[in-house]
Amino acid sequence: MGHSKGMFQESTAEAWAARFGTPAPEGLPDLGRLLNHRSVRDFTSEPVPEAMIEALVGAALSAATSSHLHAYSLVSVQDPARRREINQFCGDQRQVAHAPWFFAVCADLNRLVSQAPDPAIPDAVDTIEMYTVACVDAALAAERMVVAAESLGLGTCYIGALRNHPHEVRRILNLPDHVFGVFGLCIGWPSEENFPRIKPRLNPDQIWFREQHPAQLDVQEFDARMTEEYARDGRDEGVPWSARMARRASLRGLSGREKLQEFLHAVGLNRR
Amino acid sequence: MGHSKGMFQESTAEAWAARFGTPAPEGLPDLGRLLNHRSVRDFTSEPVPEAMIEALVGAALSAATSSHLHAYSLVSVQDPARRREINQFCGDQRQVAHAPWFFAVCADLNRLVSQAPDPAIPDAVDTIEMYTVACVDAALAAERMVVAAESLGLGTCYIGALRNHPHEVRRILNLPDHVFGVFGLCIGWPSEENFPRIKPRLNPDQIWFREQHPAQLDVQEFDARMTEEYARDGRDEGVPWSARMARRASLRGLSGREKLQEFLHAVGLNRR
Repeated sequence: MGHSKGMFQESTAEAWAARFGTPAPEGLPDLGRLLNHRSVRDFTSEPVPEAMIEALVGAALSAATSSHLHAYSLVSVQDPARRREINQFCGDQRQVAHAPWFFAVCADLNRLVSQAPDPAIPDAVDTIEMYTVACVDAALAAERMVVAAESLGLGTCYIGALRNHPHEVRRILNLPDHVFGVFGLCIGWPSEENFPRIKPRLNPDQIWFREQHPAQLDVQEFDARMTEEYARDGRDEGVPWSARMARRASLRGLSGREKLQEFLHAVGLNRR
Repeated sequence: MGHSKGMFQESTAEAWAARFGTPAPEGLPDLGRLLNHRSVRDFTSEPVPEAMIEALVGAALSAATSSHLHAYSLVSVQDPARRREINQFCGDQRQVAHAPWFFAVCADLNRLVSQAPDPAIPDAVDTIEMYTVACVDAALAAERMVVAAESLGLGTCYIGALRNHPHEVRRILNLPDHVFGVFGLCIGWPSEENFPRIKPRLNPDQIWFREQHPAQLDVQEFDARMTEEYARDGRDEGVPWSARMARRASLRGLSGREKLQEFLHAVGLNRR
């Protein structure tokens, strides 16, 4: 795997500086590649062996799962026609088209019903509590899988657009009731030419609060850092990060996902 | 940190066998400690330096975040009185009482509203789509934090019981509207005496499906493995895993969390 040796190679301190725009704190421990994440959207055509993917799934399964419920599942989509079809409903993105592997990461409460000795007993699968458990289980597993992939030099990209057309995703992947494709996950060997920079994040003191939530924050410093970042990518439209985020969290910015509630109700989730 | 050297030390192949009850597949790559996770509930009294926690938060922040929203926050609860008070509403668990560090991991859409140039623009923060984004963001960050902790020899335990009394948690942590404590996270040095075994999980082929969801599964093999596990812990009550899971996903099994929807609506989340 010599071709990916040059990537994800910043030291923890270098990654810190790139991430937060400040020198690394004194005595920062070595965290391997954990600070070096980036979303990879350009993959080489080199295949990723199935045995390697099995190892990543082993890592995913080793994440914590709430009350041992295993309330998630992973559906890989490798058949070219099916991949094209699902990408059509995921915003037609190049990384979905070209990634050697694509997974639909699903919140899955079907297992609890279909495997119950009495399917009438799990009568709370339609609550927001169980929906939350399933989404969290799915995300914990996926993130451990992503960390495992990165430790092997693989690149990944989460695909939130899997939620744009949930009815279509359900049909294409044959998802039963109580199952919902929360996000997609692309995996492959990153292309060296287009390997992305480490992207800035809010500083730790803007995410980590002591004892109580401050309610009000100051993101001016981050707006300034992000404006530089947009300019570097030729995307500076004179709109700061905070304004872009507000726009993204508006009904206009949801790309159809404002209908998600209707879908969840239809498949027996989040009804109460 | 010599005291934790003996823990999390299984090879990837040994961890695989303990996790899935089958020999590791041929050619399984070395995944460090990623398969070695366990929930740690007994901590030594040795403090964890704040600089180390800052590094873990740096890892958390390096996880992917949907559309760069940063839709989560971490509230550490170290004041002994406040820790006792929150534990009172988290099922009074020994790991919450004794962990050197305790975090409330929050889905946080407040930042998008309070920092918006026009607070009227993010008019979709009350959708299930934005709630899902926030819970997933929170879980991705927390899991990268957990992996970072384990890489340093620290132990962790997620606390779902943070959702048992969300109104109380909101009051204690001063959470504003559009913020919700999704789960707690305990962090500390594991006690060597009570260091837990690797817990079994469903086999990869029961979580990872090819091309489509099979809808029906066979968990008999896992029920048998779990019955052995319950016996090892003196918890074999003649009820298999699948039946326990059904019971857990019932209204009786929710420990008050069936009222979560009411809470979320009250704080401006998941209304539509």
